[in-house]
Formats: sequence, C-alpha cells, structure tokens
Amino acid sequence: MRALWLEKQQLKFRDDLPLPEIERGDVLIQPRLSGICSTDLELVKGYYPFTGIPGHEFVGEVIKAPGFPEYEGRRVVGEINITCGSCIYCQQDLGSHCVNRKVLGISGRNGVFADNFTLPAENLHIVPDSISDEQAVFTEPLAAALEIQEQIKISSTDRVLVVGAGRLGQLVAQTISLLDCDLAVVARYPKQRKLLEERGIKVLDEDNLAQGMMDIVVDTTGSPSGFEAARSAVRSRGTIVMKSTYADTLDINISSLVVDEITLIGSRCGPFGPALKLINDRLVDPVSLIEESFHFTDSIDAINRAGERGVLKVLLSY
Amino acid sequence: MRALWLEKQQLKFRDDLPLPEIERGDVLIQPRLSGICSTDLELVKGYYPFTGIPGHEFVGEVIKAPGFPEYEGRRVVGEINITCGSCIYCQQDLGSHCVNRKVLGISGRNGVFADNFTLPAENLHIVPDSISDEQAVFTEPLAAALEIQEQIKISSTDRVLVVGAGRLGQLVAQTISLLDCDLAVVARYPKQRKLLEERGIKVLDEDNLAQGMMDIVVDTTGSPSGFEAARSAVRSRGTIVMKSTYADTLDINISSLVVDEITLIGSRCGPFGPALKLINDRLVDPVSLIEESFHFTDSIDAINRAGERGVLKVLLSY
Repeated sequence: MRALWLEKQQLKFRDDLPLPEIERGDVLIQPRLSGICSTDLELVKGYYPFTGIPGHEFVGEVIKAPGFPEYEGRRVVGEINITCGSCIYCQQDLGSHCVNRKVLGISGRNGVFADNFTLPAENLHIVPDSISDEQAVFTEPLAAALEIQEQIKISSTDRVLVVGAGRLGQLVAQTISLLDCDLAVVARYPKQRKLLEERGIKVLDEDNLAQGMMDIVVDTTGSPSGFEAARSAVRSRGTIVMKSTYADTLDINISSLVVDEITLIGSRCGPFGPALKLINDRLVDPVSLIEESFHFTDSIDAINRAGERGVLKVLLSY
Repeated sequence: MRALWLEKQQLKFRDDLPLPEIERGDVLIQPRLSGICSTDLELVKGYYPFTGIPGHEFVGEVIKAPGFPEYEGRRVVGEINITCGSCIYCQQDLGSHCVNRKVLGISGRNGVFADNFTLPAENLHIVPDSISDEQAVFTEPLAAALEIQEQIKISSTDRVLVVGAGRLGQLVAQTISLLDCDLAVVARYPKQRKLLEERGIKVLDEDNLAQGMMDIVVDTTGSPSGFEAARSAVRSRGTIVMKSTYADTLDINISSLVVDEITLIGSRCGPFGPALKLINDRLVDPVSLIEESFHFTDSIDAINRAGERGVLKVLLSY
C-alpha cells in the first residue's frame, strides 16, 4: 500500500507498505479526504518521537468491518484515541486520557495519510448524507475547538480573546462566536481577518492589544510570542486556554501567574457528536478555511504548503 | 526610627530613618510580632526590585489613628494590599488585584520590620483577646493558605497532595485537612513530618510518589523541583495550584500540559476574616510552626536563619 512515512523527522512517500491487519474490534477504512493539522507539522519537527504513517483528520469509507455490519460501506469520521477500556480514565469515560492509549497518526498507531488504515469501530461516527466530505473532514479539529466549552464556562459578561486565526483559531472563533459573550480575535493575515469579519467577528491587531482586559484568552498559536500576547491580554484572575501543541518548552514567569492568580488550562481533543451537529445545522462554516487540496500521493508537498505562514487548511484527496 | 532596609538586594539595619508620615486614611502601627515569609527571602534574592523596609506579616498596636478612634490603642492585623478604591478590580471587591496597588513591605510601601509603619485603616482587622500575638501573627499566611479554597472546590472524592511542608505548606495542609478529602503531604524534613503526623495528616516521601494519581496538587515550594514533583503527581485533567513565588522563570513543557489537559492556578493573598475565625476556633495550630524568635534589631540574623533549609517560622519581637 502507499502511504506517507515519518521516521527520524524525515518524511518519505512509500509504496511498499503492507495493508494494515484488521485487529479484533477494528474496521478497515479507505480515506476520502484528510486534513493537515499543526500537530502533524509539530510531529515532523520532533514534538513527539513518532515513527509511522501520520495523519488523524479524515472522512472515509469503511471497506471491511468484520463483526460490525452496521458500518460496512458507510461514510465515517473517527475519534483518534485508541483506548484500553479498563484504566481509571476509561472507567470515567475519559478515553482521551487513557493511560494505555494509542493515538491515530500521532502515537503508536498508523494514521490516515495512506491508502487504508484501521480504527476501532467504537471510535466511529457515521456522517449524515447532509454533510459533505469537505465539511466532515473538519469534525476532529472542530471537536477540539469545542473542548474549550467542555472545560470552562463562558458567560455573557466575559470578554474573550482568541490569539491566532489559523486553522484551529478560526474554528475556535467560530464556535465561541455562537455563545453570548464579547469575542475578539487577534489575526495576523488579511485572509484570516476577512474570514472572521465576514462572520461578524471582531478582529484586533496584535500590536494594539489592551493589557489585562480579557477574562478568557485562548492561545491557538503554539508559539512563545502567542503565549506572550495571551499572557499580556488576560486580566488578573483570568483564564488562558492553551489550545495548541508546542514543539519546545516555554520559559514562563510563574511568579507573575501567582501574583495575578492566572489560571492556565491545557485543552486537547473534544466531543465529535456536538461537532457533527454544528456542521449539520450549518452553524459553523469550516469549508471556507480550505486553502488548497493535494492528491495524497503529493502529501509531502501538501505538508510543506501547510507549513507556510498564514496558510489555512490543506486537504488531501485520495 | 530603626528598621531593616533593603536596597539592591542588600540588607542593612538602620537607625536613621524618619518616622513614617501618616497619610489621610492611614493609621500608625507599632508592631508587636512579625513573621518572616519566603517572599521576604525572594525579595532579597531579587524577585522584585523593592527598595525600602520589608516585612508584611504582623500583629501590632495602633498608636495613632487620626479620624479612626475605633482603632486607637487596638491590637490589629492588616491586609497587605494598599488599594486605589476606584480601578476595575477595586470596583469588583478584588482589591488584592488593584492595578494601582502598593503592597506592604513588598512593593511601593514600607513594611513592618521597623519601629513603626503605617497602613490604611480599611486594611485592619481587630484581633480578639482570645487570640495571642503568637497566633495572630500567622493571620496573613493563613489567609493565603485559605485563598486556595476561594479559587477551587475541593470535593470529598478528591485526592489532594501538598508538595512542601515548610512555613506555608504546613498552613495549607492544616486548612485542607479540615475538609472532607483524601489529603497527603510531601515533607522532606523530620520536624515537618512530625508536625503533620501529630495532626493525623498523611505524609508521603517525594521519592515514592505515584505518578498521575492526584486530582489536586498544591505546590508550596517555589522551586523547579517542587513544580516537577507536582506535575508528575497530578492526574490528567487535574489541577496544580501554585502557592508560592519563584525567583526565576520556569521552563515548562507546555505540550504535556495541553496533552494531559492540566489546569494551573496561581494563588496569592486570601481572606483575613476566615483566617482569624479558624485561629479563634482553635481549628488550626500555627504556633507549633514557630522555629525561633529574634529581636527585630537582629532581623538580618533572623532572615538568614529563615533561609536555612527546613526552617519553619521565624518571628521578630519588638
């Protein structure tokens, strides 16, 4: 089978890989579209020592589902954490924190930048016919954006700032804009600003941010300067949600967090059901974020493109 | 007047200082006892560029109170943030975050390691006769310990770990032990362990901490190794309360906080009323933490003593 292969931070497109074996509980999936996420780029930079096939955002078709006839031939999206089902997190229905988890295309499990891949049937969500492939491929990052609302309550009096208006920042902004709160987004590139303004979302310039005025700041940048902007914008006793992975450690002035009693919250994977519902109800518009599509045999070019500054979502077709 | 003087990270005991002027709204106080806090030691190390008289934990007698006859001659403790009364934080009754604040003995305001000092009358709490000076001098750090409970809810099912059993760690442990939860404390020194065990508080060895098992971890150490222990002990989706000031920045692996969805909360000054009530009701025993007392004319020796490893509370008498 053909697939993109990551080893020692080097990408190679291979055509000599065996078809994945379908383990008990798994189904075999043929991707229809996949998306490139900043985590994929961080993996290449060494954020996690992964060897194998990357890729975790997909919509695909189930081509073999032994024991799960209900999924045979269906169009699906899938949760990316492959869990043990028995650890203390799994018992609390917090599978995304399973201590024995593997993560599709990120850790211990080959991902979706391939002709085929497998995933446990329990991870699947069938995509309604009313949702297109181009919409469905955004389910995973949209769920990640919605995780913020699972973790903190955003009130009508809250001033909320999203720092960064890239792939994830746009989805975070779109989801928070559905709430009753005072939202603004720091966007650096004209295209990013335009997308936000078309949805009536207030855009701020990073050089003109008032200090200490925001109740909640979401950093979607994964960069030290983004965190710095978030830190500067949040008020005393406010909250910074860290909605990104960082390839490096960050040198943080902890005393200032103590003095100002800031709350920092890390935020990762989110709920697929609400994400699919938002897409189905046309309350978010992920398709507007598509920058360019590549055939998956050109996935190295696609990843390079996704790594350019200001580029939004790059998709792979199959 | 005599006072300890800090300038360019150098301490000097002086006898050539003028008596402080009593500004409108202030009273003049003669300290009876004061306490040395880790923040005082961090100030000397350069945590904050303070020039002046340090010291902020005190019990004292009001010797002049123009306009406030109700305080004249009374024994008082006092909140350390001197606020403007009009900024957005003051308007929300969050004076400890006043943007124009001065902080007694820490920032912009001379402190209590002196023959006399001033404080706004509105900062004062009269000490009931049932509370001794030795108890009352702990009101400020005890209030700081109680701030944790103002910020997060601790439930009966929570496993709570306090890292560090020094001056502040002991008070944090004593206050949390009053709640219905599963509390343990990492203590390094025999005396620290004994004080905890005498109160029936479980003590753990830092070298044998289970990883990822704690719902809530309070780091009272102010040291990178203490933060590391806290980070290692907290479970995914758990909370680390940072209850200390750190002289340096901390190099933090933010990605791991994101992946594990950890919450970090900075925690500083707390409520004096509940602290005085706990002391009055004999529900905490701060006096057991007194390591040694010095006359305030020997305050340099006292500060050196407080800086030794494993030393609990060092007091100054006047």
